[in-house]
Amino acid sequence: MSKPLKVAILGCGVVGSEVVRLIEAHAEDLAHRIGAPVELAGIAVRRPQRSRDVSVDPSLFTTDSAALVARDDVDVVIEVIGGIEPARSLLITALERGASVVTANKALLAEDGSSLYDAAERGNTDLYCEASVAGAIPLLRPLRESLAGDRVNRVIGIVNGTTNYILTKMDSTGASFTDALEEAQALGYAEADPSADVDGFDAAAKAAILAGLAFHTRVTAADVHREGISDVTAGDVKSARDMDGVVKLLAIAERAPDRNGRESVGVRVHPAILPRSHPLAGVRDAYNAVFIEADAAGQLMFYGRGAGGAPTASAVLGDLVAVCRNRLSGARGAGDSSYAALPIRPMGETITRYHVSLDVADKAGVLASVAQAFAVHDVSIQTVRQEGHGDDATLDLVTHAATDAALAATVEELRRLDVVRAVASVMRVEGGGA
Amino acid sequence: MSKPLKVAILGCGVVGSEVVRLIEAHAEDLAHRIGAPVELAGIAVRRPQRSRDVSVDPSLFTTDSAALVARDDVDVVIEVIGGIEPARSLLITALERGASVVTANKALLAEDGSSLYDAAERGNTDLYCEASVAGAIPLLRPLRESLAGDRVNRVIGIVNGTTNYILTKMDSTGASFTDALEEAQALGYAEADPSADVDGFDAAAKAAILAGLAFHTRVTAADVHREGISDVTAGDVKSARDMDGVVKLLAIAERAPDRNGRESVGVRVHPAILPRSHPLAGVRDAYNAVFIEADAAGQLMFYGRGAGGAPTASAVLGDLVAVCRNRLSGARGAGDSSYAALPIRPMGETITRYHVSLDVADKAGVLASVAQAFAVHDVSIQTVRQEGHGDDATLDLVTHAATDAALAATVEELRRLDVVRAVASVMRVEGGGA
Repeated sequence: MSKPLKVAILGCGVVGSEVVRLIEAHAEDLAHRIGAPVELAGIAVRRPQRSRDVSVDPSLFTTDSAALVARDDVDVVIEVIGGIEPARSLLITALERGASVVTANKALLAEDGSSLYDAAERGNTDLYCEASVAGAIPLLRPLRESLAGDRVNRVIGIVNGTTNYILTKMDSTGASFTDALEEAQALGYAEADPSADVDGFDAAAKAAILAGLAFHTRVTAADVHREGISDVTAGDVKSARDMDGVVKLLAIAERAPDRNGRESVGVRVHPAILPRSHPLAGVRDAYNAVFIEADAAGQLMFYGRGAGGAPTASAVLGDLVAVCRNRLSGARGAGDSSYAALPIRPMGETITRYHVSLDVADKAGVLASVAQAFAVHDVSIQTVRQEGHGDDATLDLVTHAATDAALAATVEELRRLDVVRAVASVMRVEGGGA
Repeated sequence: MSKPLKVAILGCGVVGSEVVRLIEAHAEDLAHRIGAPVELAGIAVRRPQRSRDVSVDPSLFTTDSAALVARDDVDVVIEVIGGIEPARSLLITALERGASVVTANKALLAEDGSSLYDAAERGNTDLYCEASVAGAIPLLRPLRESLAGDRVNRVIGIVNGTTNYILTKMDSTGASFTDALEEAQALGYAEADPSADVDGFDAAAKAAILAGLAFHTRVTAADVHREGISDVTAGDVKSARDMDGVVKLLAIAERAPDRNGRESVGVRVHPAILPRSHPLAGVRDAYNAVFIEADAAGQLMFYGRGAGGAPTASAVLGDLVAVCRNRLSGARGAGDSSYAALPIRPMGETITRYHVSLDVADKAGVLASVAQAFAVHDVSIQTVRQEGHGDDATLDLVTHAATDAALAATVEELRRLDVVRAVASVMRVEGGGA
């Protein structure tokens, strides 16, 4: 057995204290799996006096995170403080002097991952980040390593537990978005300020990271088309049920030719209707899952807890074992890989399908006018269903695949039609093939 | 970019020819991901003249597999011939002289994996086998690496596509086992001699490999308690439906104390009733999935195609990239790990639940007699449902958790009771907690 590897931890909140607990509880297993014991070198916190649910030598706590990451004897830095600064500067310091880094920081990776990967390159060391996407679900390693000999074409994920909890509630009880959000807040599934979740920012950061990994290219959060779920109504959810579907907030990354025929990558986060027969449709409550379509492997799905102290800490520890093993063998793991350097496809060029629900006047020629609005934008209608009479008449339409720009223009056109009283619901339809 | 790595392939059937195709089709991607190009050194086949759906230099084909694996210039040997010999001897030769090995051979790994791992140790090289369990689904890498800092407690898998297809058919159409098997054979999902699949041999080999990986211990196919699905009746499937469950052939590996309180591992393959709400219940047709319960990560599930040329080849290529990267960096991957050396728990000590369906005489005191049979073996009844009258009266019982030995003895006792005309169905119940 080799001499101990020294680990510094930045942050000791929900995830950090669970990381500390696992390192202590599984010390013997970790030593066997790594080939050397792991030893805590220090834990950087803002308030060292605060009482924490960890049983470690109190002298390990420090407020001087900059000094901790710069220490020559620290082999691995685990970062679980989140946010852009000071996390970025601290990790760059650690990486440049050759420490291995394990981070759960999705916001930083999605905004400026390349700064970190460049620093890892300069320090000839590892940057691992399994915990940054979908908590405990092993995703980055399967995408980067298990599918390394395959070609991934599309990734569709439910990567935000808060919104999935809200949408599951709306689906199972018919609740409004506001009521479901309040319940989620009461249960601690949603923050008091829920914007990061319900407006799709969290999912967009994860989508950027997933897209980069799946397609070996650089994608930042700013490249992701983002729509949240706060406009999803009980009516939208009912429309989905009526077509045997379910509304989910999806993070989708796909490789496809742009309109000039160049290979490109489109990355988007938005609510969409999935058929109930799709494996992702059964992912309920705060669970996460990622569905992958690859050339040879076909369809794969990875399912589990996407957040929480223990699941996230499990992913951090998996990375810790990997980077420690790499240090002992003098090797580096599969790091940054962005050789494909694909351009980002504009959202308008995305090929998708729409479900549109219209309140219409109940008179002759309505369907003809509506159908004409689709036709002028070259959008082909797959199904139409008319219901009710008089003032209650509704038309439910599902289109064939078309560009998002054409579909959006069609909806604008519908809003202007005299025979359309209101466009009651517009929702993309995914998961049914093109 | 480094100089090319030379790859020998043993076997060029369904999987082998797909491996060759992927190596050729993705040559550029592979070179980027590995850091060096991959070059075919030779393909060992029994009949070199046979026409194959691969476009490679015909001079690469050879019948002399022994000479091919012994060649000094071969860096990696991919084995897709299956069976124990000559695969074992060939791989041991390759490993001992330091070649990296990628194999899809579950039978060999389950029967004598330690010979191969020992040879890899002697040759200081890698033995990777992702393709041996559940085809394209990344499992071995997540279990060994992503969860390396966690503690896996239980693995429950649907790891045989043929039996899952048959059971899905029985569930959705009410077909008998024989009719569903015939349909599976007609569609090519089942072999003319279906024993390896329907009698659970294939699943047992995979269960042994999964158990070893999950618990860092040695498990062979002989350690696995095995029951197939040929005795599953349409009545069993209906009983499951009546309790909102579905019959699946499950491969279960769990860590638990044996009756002396020592930590042990139990590994079993048998049909069982799963609640329809369980994530594995929705895994239909020939799909595979593996459900994992870990201390910190919680519940995880991995889903995808378990067999077929392309999915299996995808897993082989992922391993190929990994072992090539390891060779270039002079490192070895996470290899054999059996430090835990857990004893195998006998099947009788397994804690499980039973569903029992009885045809009974419709007279007073029947339930009392039946309940007494459970009580004498200390088995507690969770639910009882009585249906029908006269000669058609049936009793459906579900027990609380008890040892398998006590449950089996209870069923024996029931068969001897005068009031029990027949024990119509006995099935374990899983997935609902203990």
